[in-house]
Amino acid sequence: MPIPPALLTPDLSALTDGIYPQPLRQTLAGQTSQFITSTPPALASPQPQASPVPVVEKAKRLAAWTAVDRHVLPEHKVIGIGSGSTVPFVVERIVSQGKAVNKDRVFIPTGFQSKELIVNAKLLLGDVDQYPVIDVTIDGADEVDHDLNAIKGGGACHLREKVLAEAADTFVIVADYRKNSEVLGTNWTQGVPIEVAPFAYAKVLQNLHLIGSPKATLRMAKAKAGPVVSDNGNFIIDAPFPREMMQDPYTLLTRIKMLTGVVEVGLFCHMAKAAYFGNEDGSVLIKWHDGKTEHVDSSASPKLSQNDEISATNG
Amino acid sequence: MPIPPALLTPDLSALTDGIYPQPLRQTLAGQTSQFITSTPPALASPQPQASPVPVVEKAKRLAAWTAVDRHVLPEHKVIGIGSGSTVPFVVERIVSQGKAVNKDRVFIPTGFQSKELIVNAKLLLGDVDQYPVIDVTIDGADEVDHDLNAIKGGGACHLREKVLAEAADTFVIVADYRKNSEVLGTNWTQGVPIEVAPFAYAKVLQNLHLIGSPKATLRMAKAKAGPVVSDNGNFIIDAPFPREMMQDPYTLLTRIKMLTGVVEVGLFCHMAKAAYFGNEDGSVLIKWHDGKTEHVDSSASPKLSQNDEISATNG
Amino acid sequence: MPIPPALLTPDLSALTDGIYPQPLRQTLAGQTSQFITSTPPALASPQPQASPVPVVEKAKRLAAWTAVDRHVLPEHKVIGIGSGSTVPFVVERIVSQGKAVNKDRVFIPTGFQSKELIVNAKLLLGDVDQYPVIDVTIDGADEVDHDLNAIKGGGACHLREKVLAEAADTFVIVADYRKNSEVLGTNWTQGVPIEVAPFAYAKVLQNLHLIGSPKATLRMAKAKAGPVVSDNGNFIIDAPFPREMMQDPYTLLTRIKMLTGVVEVGLFCHMAKAAYFGNEDGSVLIKWHDGKTEHVDSSASPKLSQNDEISATNG
Amino acid sequence: MPIPPALLTPDLSALTDGIYPQPLRQTLAGQTSQFITSTPPALASPQPQASPVPVVEKAKRLAAWTAVDRHVLPEHKVIGIGSGSTVPFVVERIVSQGKAVNKDRVFIPTGFQSKELIVNAKLLLGDVDQYPVIDVTIDGADEVDHDLNAIKGGGACHLREKVLAEAADTFVIVADYRKNSEVLGTNWTQGVPIEVAPFAYAKVLQNLHLIGSPKATLRMAKAKAGPVVSDNGNFIIDAPFPREMMQDPYTLLTRIKMLTGVVEVGLFCHMAKAAYFGNEDGSVLIKWHDGKTEHVDSSASPKLSQNDEISATNG
Repeated sequence: MPIPPALLTPDLSALTDGIYPQPLRQTLAGQTSQFITSTPPALASPQPQASPVPVVEKAKRLAAWTAVDRHVLPEHKVIGIGSGSTVPFVVERIVSQGKAVNKDRVFIPTGFQSKELIVNAKLLLGDVDQYPVIDVTIDGADEVDHDLNAIKGGGACHLREKVLAEAADTFVIVADYRKNSEVLGTNWTQGVPIEVAPFAYAKVLQNLHLIGSPKATLRMAKAKAGPVVSDNGNFIIDAPFPREMMQDPYTLLTRIKMLTGVVEVGLFCHMAKAAYFGNEDGSVLIKWHDGKTEHVDSSASPKLSQNDEISATNG
Repeated sequence: MPIPPALLTPDLSALTDGIYPQPLRQTLAGQTSQFITSTPPALASPQPQASPVPVVEKAKRLAAWTAVDRHVLPEHKVIGIGSGSTVPFVVERIVSQGKAVNKDRVFIPTGFQSKELIVNAKLLLGDVDQYPVIDVTIDGADEVDHDLNAIKGGGACHLREKVLAEAADTFVIVADYRKNSEVLGTNWTQGVPIEVAPFAYAKVLQNLHLIGSPKATLRMAKAKAGPVVSDNGNFIIDAPFPREMMQDPYTLLTRIKMLTGVVEVGLFCHMAKAAYFGNEDGSVLIKWHDGKTEHVDSSASPKLSQNDEISATNG
Repeated sequence: MPIPPALLTPDLSALTDGIYPQPLRQTLAGQTSQFITSTPPALASPQPQASPVPVVEKAKRLAAWTAVDRHVLPEHKVIGIGSGSTVPFVVERIVSQGKAVNKDRVFIPTGFQSKELIVNAKLLLGDVDQYPVIDVTIDGADEVDHDLNAIKGGGACHLREKVLAEAADTFVIVADYRKNSEVLGTNWTQGVPIEVAPFAYAKVLQNLHLIGSPKATLRMAKAKAGPVVSDNGNFIIDAPFPREMMQDPYTLLTRIKMLTGVVEVGLFCHMAKAAYFGNEDGSVLIKWHDGKTEHVDSSASPKLSQNDEISATNG
Repeated sequence: MPIPPALLTPDLSALTDGIYPQPLRQTLAGQTSQFITSTPPALASPQPQASPVPVVEKAKRLAAWTAVDRHVLPEHKVIGIGSGSTVPFVVERIVSQGKAVNKDRVFIPTGFQSKELIVNAKLLLGDVDQYPVIDVTIDGADEVDHDLNAIKGGGACHLREKVLAEAADTFVIVADYRKNSEVLGTNWTQGVPIEVAPFAYAKVLQNLHLIGSPKATLRMAKAKAGPVVSDNGNFIIDAPFPREMMQDPYTLLTRIKMLTGVVEVGLFCHMAKAAYFGNEDGSVLIKWHDGKTEHVDSSASPKLSQNDEISATNG
C-alpha cells in the first residue's frame, strides 16, 4: 500500500508540546477481520491447481485426510492442532467438513505456526488452560517407532505439544514415511530434544554426558546470536543416545526428566493411538497402538478426488 | 472431591517397567466445559442479595453500568476488558445485554484476572494479535487527572493494558472517586510504574534518579523472594516525580520511555474518551476528554433498579 | 541527593532536532564501585550495637557461624550462597575469615537477594554455568525432616537453589528451630512449592488434584495482579499433600516432577549433609545425614563473642 | 571421554525405593575450572599458524588491535565486550596486554557469545547491574554511517549491547569494510532490528507499516518453529525504511521506540567515539565522531608483527 506523504516526512513536533499524536489505528478502522492474514510468514498451503503435486505430497495429504476422516468426528468439539508439513492438510480437511460442524468447535494450537493455520482457516482459536480436556489432537513427529513412541521437538515446541497430546482423549500422529522406523534415533540422529531452564543448562549438559549422551549439545540459533530460546523462554539441548537406550524410550524419558533443570523431554511414550504415514508411492501406512498395521491405497480412495475439488474451490 | 484410595497410596511400579501410567485425564472425561470455573482464585463477583452493598460499591456499579450502556453498543464486536475493582460490574452489565448480542462478540483481556472474568462469564475469549483493532476497551486506573491522563501499572499489567487501550476506537476508564484528581501523583504517591528489561534495571534506576526521581526503586515481591516479575518476564520500577513534572505527563512519558531498557511506562496520555467515577454518596462523576463533566444520580437511573433484578436472577 | 534544576525543568528540544542528549552517565563518573550498594532494598544486616539482639537471632547467628566454621574451609574456592533469614549471618562469618582467603573465592548466588548479599559484602560474584562444581553450598529451608529432606520454594527460587545444592560437594542447611520437624508438612502447611510452565498450569493443577493434592492452587502475587511469576518466568503452585505421602518425599518428588509441565519441585531429598537450627534458648541443634544429632551451647563458644566484635567494627 | 558401563545400562530401581541416586557430580570432582571450556560451541579463534590468513582477516585483526591499543588503557578496569567477527581479535589483544593488568579487570559481555569469549580467555566475568559504569566498550555493528550512527541487532542482542554502549565512558566499534557506508540501510538491507514484547507484536507491525515501513516483518527462526525469541524473551521485527528516513536515524529511533510494545531499537545514534574498519587490502580506516578519518597501513605497524608472535605462542 502507498504510504501517505506525511508519514514519510514525519513531523516530530508532537513530541515536544505534550500533545499525543493522532492514534495510528484510525487508518485501519474496519479492517479488523482481515488483519492477521496479512501478517507474518504464511505457512505453505496446498495449491493443487498451480503445479503438479509431487507424489509424496499427495501421500501426506492422503494420510492427513484419512486421519481426519477417522478421528475428527462431528461430536468432537475441542481439537488440538500440531505442526509439521503434514498438518496443513489436516486443517484443510477439517475445513472441508463444513462451516456447520466447525462453528461450534474450538481449536487449540501447539505453537505459533499452528495458531496461524487455525486463524487463516477462520477457525475458532482456544487456549489449553480454558479447555484442559481435548477430544482429539493431531500432530506431526520427528520419528515414530514400532510401538508408537515418538521423538518430537525439532521445532522446540514439544512442551506445548506434549500438554496437548496428554490432554487429548485421542492423540494421532501424521507424518511422511521418513519419520517411520523401528527404533527411535535411526533416522532422527541429531538427538532427543530437551527443553532446559537457562540457569541450569551447563549442569544438565554435564549430567546428560554422564548418563549416556557424551555428545549432547546446546542447540544454537541461526537467525540470532547464541542459543535457541524456546517460546517458553528456555534453552534446547539435543542429546543423542546409543541405540540400546533408545530402545526403551520410557525409561530414558524418566531418567532425563528427573534431572534438575529439565523442563520437558521430546520423547512421547505410549501416547499415540495411531500414526499415519504418507509414502513415496502415494499410499498411506497406518500403525496402531496395539501393533496392527494397515495400508490405504490412493486409488482406493474415492473421497480423495471428491474433496480435491472442494479444496480447490475453497483455497 | 474425595480422593480415590488408590491415589493416596500411589504405586510407583509403573515407573520401572517402561509402562506408561494410565492417562490421568480419563477421570475428567466429559467435564471439559466446567473445568476452568473450578480452578484458581475466583474474582469476587457482586452478590447484591447476600448483604447490604456499601454505598461506594453501588456507586462503582452505577459507574460501570452507565459506561457500558453508553459505550458498548450492539454493533461492537471486539471488546477489551481491563482490571480493577470496578471492572467486574462492567462484565456483569455486558452479560445482562443478553446472549443474542454477546454470542458474536470477542472479548480481549488485559491480564490473568480479566481473562478469568471473561471465562467465568462464559464470554468468548480473544487475542490481541488476532484482533488488533478493538471497538471499545473499558479498564480501571490508579489515578486520572483533569485531562484524562492516567497512571496505570499498580498491578504491573500496564503494557498489555496500553496495547488494548491504544488498539481501541474508544477507551473508557471506570474507577472509584479516590482515583480522581487534578494532577497525577496526588493520591497515587508510590510513583509511576515502569516496566524494564531485567538486564537493564540498574541502569534505568540510575537514569531515573538523574532525570528527577531520586526515590525510584525496584518493586519487590511479597509472595516470592526478590523483585516482582511481570507477566512479560520483566521487572517493575516505581518512580515518584515532583508535581511540576507530573503536570506534563506526556513529556515525562517521552523522557522515560526513551531510556534504554524501558519497556513501557504506566502513563496513559490523551487516550481516554471518558472516565466514570463512582462516588461515596452513590452518584457518578463523568469526565470527558473535551473537559466537560457530568453527574449521574442513582435515584435518576431507572435502568439501574431494573437491571438489578436481572443481575440478581443472573448471578 | 538534590536534583539539579535543569533536570526538574527538562528541555525536550533535544528530542526534535536529531541531537542525542548528553549521556546521563557522565554525572556518575568514578562512582562505579559504590553504585550497587545504593540501589535496591538492602537486606537487613545484623546490627548488634543498635539494640539488644533477640535470643533467637543470636541462635541463628550461632547456627550460621558454626556451619561456616565447620564447612567453609580455606581450601574451598567456589561457594554457593542461598537465602533466608539465617543466611546473612553466613555471609557475615565468611567475611570475617578475612580478605586473604576470600580474594581467591567465587560466590554463586541462588537468587536476587543472595546476589545482593554477596555484592554488598564485596565478595566476588560467579555464575553456575561457569562453575558447575561447587565446593560447598549453604542455604536456608522452609522445613527439614528427620532424614534431612527439605521443603524449599517459599521464595519461589527452588530451581536455582536445587541446581546449587546438587552442584555442591557439600550442601548444608541453616535455619531457625521452627523449620525442624519429623515429617515434612507439619509446620509448613501451605504445600509443596512446584514451579510450572505457564502454558501448562491448568493441566498440572488438574493432575495434582488427581494424585493426592485436591487443594493445590496457583500462588497469587500481592505486589502485582495475577499469579506470582518466578525469576525463570514460570508460575508457582502450592500443593499440600496428606501426611502419608509427605513421609516418603522422594517418591512424591518423582511423581510430581514426571508430570508434563512441571519444571521443578520444592522437595530436596537426600541432598543435605547437615542442618543447623538456631533454637529459642540461644543454643544450636545440628542434625547429620546419618541420623546423629548434636547440640552447641552458646556459652561454650568463645569464638562467638570474639567475632561479635569483628562484626561490630566490620558492619 | 568413555562412558562407564553402568551409565549405559542404567538401573532405575533407585527410582522406586525412595533412595536418591548417588550424586552425578562426584565424577567431575576437581574439574571445576576447565569445565566450561569443554561445553558449547567454541567461537572461532584466530589460528595464524594453521593456514594463511586471508587479507581481510588480517585487516580485521589490525582494526581490533589498533582499537585496543588506543582505547583499552592500563587504568581501565571495567570493560564491555561485544560480538561480531572482529571481536575475537579484540579479546586476543586484551589478553596480550598481560596477566598483571588483566587480573584487576572485569569484563562485561553483551550476550552468550561474548560471555564465552571472556570465559575461554580466562578473564573475569562481570555483570552490568554490578558495574553500571564501564570504562570502555568495544563492539561490532551491522552498518555504520558517516556520523557514526549504527545499525545493530542482526544477532538480536541489541538491547544488551545498547545498555553496555550507553554505560561506557568510551564506546568503540570494530568491523570490516562492508559495514561502512554513508547512509544506514545501504548495505544492511533487511531492516532495522526492533525488539518487541510478544503480546504486542501484531500492533507494532501494524504501526510500523503506517509510519513508513510497509515491509516490516517478524523475524522467523531457523533452528526452531515460529519466530526468533531473544535472550530477553521477546520477538524481533526487521523493518526496512526508505533512505530519506534512514538519513535521520535519531528521529527514526525516537518514532519507533515511542510505539507501545517496542522494547528497544537497533539504531545506535551519537554513541560511538570511533569506528575501526578492516579493509580488503589489509589496511584500516578509522572514523571519528567529529567527522575526521584516519588510515592505518599494516606495513606501518611494527607492533602488529611483534604481537603476532605473542598471539602465536599464546593461542
